[in-house]
Amino acid sequence: MRAEIVSVGDELLKGQRVNTNAAFMAVALSGIGVPVGRIVSCPDIEEEMVSVFAESLERADIVLVTGGLGPTRDDRTRKAVQQLLHRGLEMSKDAYENLAGRMKKRGLELSASLRDQAMVIEGSHVIANTKGTAAGMIIRCGERFYDHYLVLMPGVPSEMQAMMELTVIPYFASLSSLVIRHTPVKTLGIGESTLAEMIVDIENHLPEGTTLAYLPHAAGVNLMITTLGQDEDAVDRDNRNVVDAIVERASKYIYSTSEVTLEATIGAMLLATGKSIAVAESCTGGLVASRLTDVPGSSSYFLQGFVVYSNQAKQKSLGVPKELIESFGAVSEEVARAMATGCLEKSGADYAVSTTGIAGPGGGTAEKPVGMICLAIANKRSGSVLSKTLFMQGDRERNKLRFSEAALRELWECLRNK
Amino acid sequence: MRAEIVSVGDELLKGQRVNTNAAFMAVALSGIGVPVGRIVSCPDIEEEMVSVFAESLERADIVLVTGGLGPTRDDRTRKAVQQLLHRGLEMSKDAYENLAGRMKKRGLELSASLRDQAMVIEGSHVIANTKGTAAGMIIRCGERFYDHYLVLMPGVPSEMQAMMELTVIPYFASLSSLVIRHTPVKTLGIGESTLAEMIVDIENHLPEGTTLAYLPHAAGVNLMITTLGQDEDAVDRDNRNVVDAIVERASKYIYSTSEVTLEATIGAMLLATGKSIAVAESCTGGLVASRLTDVPGSSSYFLQGFVVYSNQAKQKSLGVPKELIESFGAVSEEVARAMATGCLEKSGADYAVSTTGIAGPGGGTAEKPVGMICLAIANKRSGSVLSKTLFMQGDRERNKLRFSEAALRELWECLRNK
Repeated sequence: MRAEIVSVGDELLKGQRVNTNAAFMAVALSGIGVPVGRIVSCPDIEEEMVSVFAESLERADIVLVTGGLGPTRDDRTRKAVQQLLHRGLEMSKDAYENLAGRMKKRGLELSASLRDQAMVIEGSHVIANTKGTAAGMIIRCGERFYDHYLVLMPGVPSEMQAMMELTVIPYFASLSSLVIRHTPVKTLGIGESTLAEMIVDIENHLPEGTTLAYLPHAAGVNLMITTLGQDEDAVDRDNRNVVDAIVERASKYIYSTSEVTLEATIGAMLLATGKSIAVAESCTGGLVASRLTDVPGSSSYFLQGFVVYSNQAKQKSLGVPKELIESFGAVSEEVARAMATGCLEKSGADYAVSTTGIAGPGGGTAEKPVGMICLAIANKRSGSVLSKTLFMQGDRERNKLRFSEAALRELWECLRNK
Repeated sequence: MRAEIVSVGDELLKGQRVNTNAAFMAVALSGIGVPVGRIVSCPDIEEEMVSVFAESLERADIVLVTGGLGPTRDDRTRKAVQQLLHRGLEMSKDAYENLAGRMKKRGLELSASLRDQAMVIEGSHVIANTKGTAAGMIIRCGERFYDHYLVLMPGVPSEMQAMMELTVIPYFASLSSLVIRHTPVKTLGIGESTLAEMIVDIENHLPEGTTLAYLPHAAGVNLMITTLGQDEDAVDRDNRNVVDAIVERASKYIYSTSEVTLEATIGAMLLATGKSIAVAESCTGGLVASRLTDVPGSSSYFLQGFVVYSNQAKQKSLGVPKELIESFGAVSEEVARAMATGCLEKSGADYAVSTTGIAGPGGGTAEKPVGMICLAIANKRSGSVLSKTLFMQGDRERNKLRFSEAALRELWECLRNK
């Protein structure tokens, strides 16, 4: 079985939106052994859609379409499918009830344009929309298209993703005979080329059917080990062997071999040891706290954050001595250490992390350039304070992200080695 | 003149890389009045490329291809083009000198495989690569393809971008006679269908050549008004008229008609009035502070943030009375108000924003469900405190984002109406 993806929307063709949906769907499909042959973005024009859908249905067993299902008039996907397959619309009771329920919850009336969202192509298998109003559809396209499948979903990423996970993937998984295993290897603090050199011999001797991809991100690189085959046990074994070999080689840099974030990994470590955390941030402006609290249940271990942008706030909220700031500057390991110990005291947490640096674009000097960060971690039990200075390169948002990643990385190291 | 974009690469079809190149090219093309009709991602397979290139050349005057030209990969793109157009390769003197110069600079020998990078399709207009080794090409494809243009570039974003800016865009700008204007209309606090109903008559009477697109985001919807035409003055006027009509109709919900973020809009308002801000966050966990400090220069008006996750932190850091939390619960307008006034006092800021709510997935009850947020804004000068309770629907991260958006929206309203 092969798939193609069609993304409908003028905003894609104008470059106003990057097509992240297609990448999500491609990953999900390869998870059930369905390779993607083409990805096509086409405009909101009915005739164009009709011909793009027809071309893809000729070539591929499954054609996934996103976009053009919302309540406004630039949403023409259903009309194009009606024209292509010569079918009418019918009311989906399930979709209607979902709509009515969502509106009731918000105390709103069900308008005519919204009610229209429950109308689906005749003979569709309806995909429930757990995150929005427009119903999705799985449609068998009849003899003319070799009974291939057309799947219609909204373009809103959260709605499409929920539909893929809850309905589309389970639906097609049972029809596919290939097995695919993907295992991520998530690393920190090592670049793509250094990591590649470190595992060159593993990469040169991958078992047949196994591939290794480098996925660089803002603060390092992750690996994805993919194995494809007919026999589930062999696929599992081959995949696991490669992952184990990499983990053995590069364990220092690896924080996970599953799809969890660094902040969730840290959360699990804190939970397991019954320890709590507080943060004191200057240059990261609340981003470290925000990332730590992205984790469900983080209120069990995250006590408090101080975003101390001004020098006065550093003094008043954390008791950083004025003289320290005057002697060493706000961006210094000395101030970072004082912020961490002050944060520990004020919050009563077991660990405190602090950041102070220059995110840019202004504020840099020759000795303290944009991209410089000082960070510290204070440990209540041992009474020790670790501090570090690092230099990054990027624009303001990228620097903030890398700063936050550096702080979380140090925290992770500290929790791992304690 | 119309264009299509073809992105070659298995990593796109596996979802391991998001196609940001296509969006970059689409924006650059629309800047010279060349609309993009389709964007296709296809695999590194020669026969597939030949048929994708042929299909696009049938439809579009210009076909931009990226990928398959790099030094470490097989050069399958060139091979596919040779097969498609029945042409040989020739050595490009300019490309060879670029290569030799780059190698010399790095003290390296020019290897045979690298020298191959200077071979181009016969009759190409060579695109200099200022950031790498592989030469780009602009090729006129002869009668069979109506003399349409095929443009080959590497898939490395920095190399492609430099080629677009220095060569491809200037080359085609002179051939294009169309002008395009895009104007965003950024809204808050109104959904897609409500906004569509509000401006239905404007949308029904758009001038010829003007289109209106809805771009939903996590906390609302933005509009994009695009006008395409021959006469620059007429295009400007038509575009402006539609934007003005929408602004007049929906001004309550519009915070900008240019590409700025809400946080930057707020920052500009604070700067203009010389006022400062501090935030006190529970459920948003630092995200409001982080967004406000994403803006360059925000240290001029952002003083401090308190991320008070635990009840104890709310009491200790902001002086929220214990009894208030016990009587009304931590998630209540009463506590939100006390957080905002405490934050105002502790920070000395002119405005303080507070958030307390339930991001989920745990912690919800019948009266206080997941997605509920109480927020408050305290104003030092007037001594007034505004508070509000809202209900959102989403997972934890989406709720945090919407909560932060709601807080920023109230702040924006407050600054606008003061």
